[in-house]
Amino acid sequence: MAKSDNRKPEQNIIIGRNPVTEALRSGREVDKLLVASREGSMKKILAMAKEQGVPVIFVEKAAIDRVAGGQAHQGVLAYVSPYTYSSVEEILKRAEERGEDPFIIILDGIEDPHNLGAIMRTAECAGAHGIIIPKRHSSGLTETVAKASAGAIEYMPVAKVTNIAQTIDKLKDRGVWVAACDMGGTEYYRSDVSGSIAVVIGSEGFGVSRLVKDKCDFVVSMPMVGKINSLNASNAAAVIIYEIRKQRDCKKI
Amino acid sequence: MAKSDNRKPEQNIIIGRNPVTEALRSGREVDKLLVASREGSMKKILAMAKEQGVPVIFVEKAAIDRVAGGQAHQGVLAYVSPYTYSSVEEILKRAEERGEDPFIIILDGIEDPHNLGAIMRTAECAGAHGIIIPKRHSSGLTETVAKASAGAIEYMPVAKVTNIAQTIDKLKDRGVWVAACDMGGTEYYRSDVSGSIAVVIGSEGFGVSRLVKDKCDFVVSMPMVGKINSLNASNAAAVIIYEIRKQRDCKKI
Repeated sequence: MAKSDNRKPEQNIIIGRNPVTEALRSGREVDKLLVASREGSMKKILAMAKEQGVPVIFVEKAAIDRVAGGQAHQGVLAYVSPYTYSSVEEILKRAEERGEDPFIIILDGIEDPHNLGAIMRTAECAGAHGIIIPKRHSSGLTETVAKASAGAIEYMPVAKVTNIAQTIDKLKDRGVWVAACDMGGTEYYRSDVSGSIAVVIGSEGFGVSRLVKDKCDFVVSMPMVGKINSLNASNAAAVIIYEIRKQRDCKKI
Repeated sequence: MAKSDNRKPEQNIIIGRNPVTEALRSGREVDKLLVASREGSMKKILAMAKEQGVPVIFVEKAAIDRVAGGQAHQGVLAYVSPYTYSSVEEILKRAEERGEDPFIIILDGIEDPHNLGAIMRTAECAGAHGIIIPKRHSSGLTETVAKASAGAIEYMPVAKVTNIAQTIDKLKDRGVWVAACDMGGTEYYRSDVSGSIAVVIGSEGFGVSRLVKDKCDFVVSMPMVGKINSLNASNAAAVIIYEIRKQRDCKKI
């Protein structure tokens, strides 16, 4: 979120113990908490945040003062998403309603909002049913993502899950094949990604995490013939997302 | 280029009439001039800039004062590239030396340095021989591009040309097929891009310009099945660049 010049509170923040407690209780999507106290009713708030997997950042009181723009904050402030998240069930239902095999993108820790936005855009253009992101170590649905998505954020469902590995197990139980996009696999265009498929794109710095990769049914790779050997995350996503689109289109004929 | 906090001159600028004249005379890559005077020896500098197609931005003297950080500038300052540009001939020679058909990316006005960097990265990974950009309305080889390229800027030749349409004519004369990546063409995966090929990626806002598109031999398109109908420029580039890589690999077998 951009810094506010006139020190007015930001649009997507909730300030103070009671409002934050209500936000956590109501199930509203809380991206993170800024916290400057662990005393009294803060204990309950911290317990709720932990239970829901909401990241908590401990800061000096002055930092919250700045963001709250003069409003009384009692040592806590929550960033909430201006966009609504979907669920894995809703994404699967969307595929079913269209009479299509599920076509899902799993992002294992994309932290750059421009990459997240670009991937949403490509996923929407290629007819994917939804995107799954983890609660931690991932960009949420911010205004920067919305801008980079060029409108796709309005159409492409995004589910935020606590544990990507467990989500993969659930998808596999539902008959979805899960492919990791990483090094050392089959060339992506020799892989059968024409049916029910979820493809996992790794983080910008570290690729697909070990635990997640182990859960995947197979690994797809882009041939690397130059002197560097990894693509920008959204570029890698675009290549495999359009391979899935292509295999679906070619199957129809 | 980032603003300098301590008002020291920027690393990649050349200040004053004689130094700028020398830079223009030596053939060093000048990205643009900031100019606050049209008098005396400035006439010569402006004529040289015009001849070489170097963009000139007329500004108040105070603007040059700020960038020059207190150095005497005599009303002129040049931004030069920290990276060396290549030429179309050198790119073609690179293909020849490798015994490969030319594989070239033409960027028709990519202004976002992150997109330019990501495309360089993907082009290097996929084994392209070079990138062609126009002198005007395009990001040059800045530090932001270098960072986004993840090192590819050291390996991927970039030629800067005055006129993309004329360059396409030259490439066609040399037996290179030129494809525009735009709407309304053949699905990219049904197009033969396996031989000598240059692919044109349009600008973020406007796609491939009319004049350039008319020069192209054919148009390749990504199927668009969602509610929005255009990809991020670097994502579109990635899809077609890897289709070219794939068709080359499959031809070998």
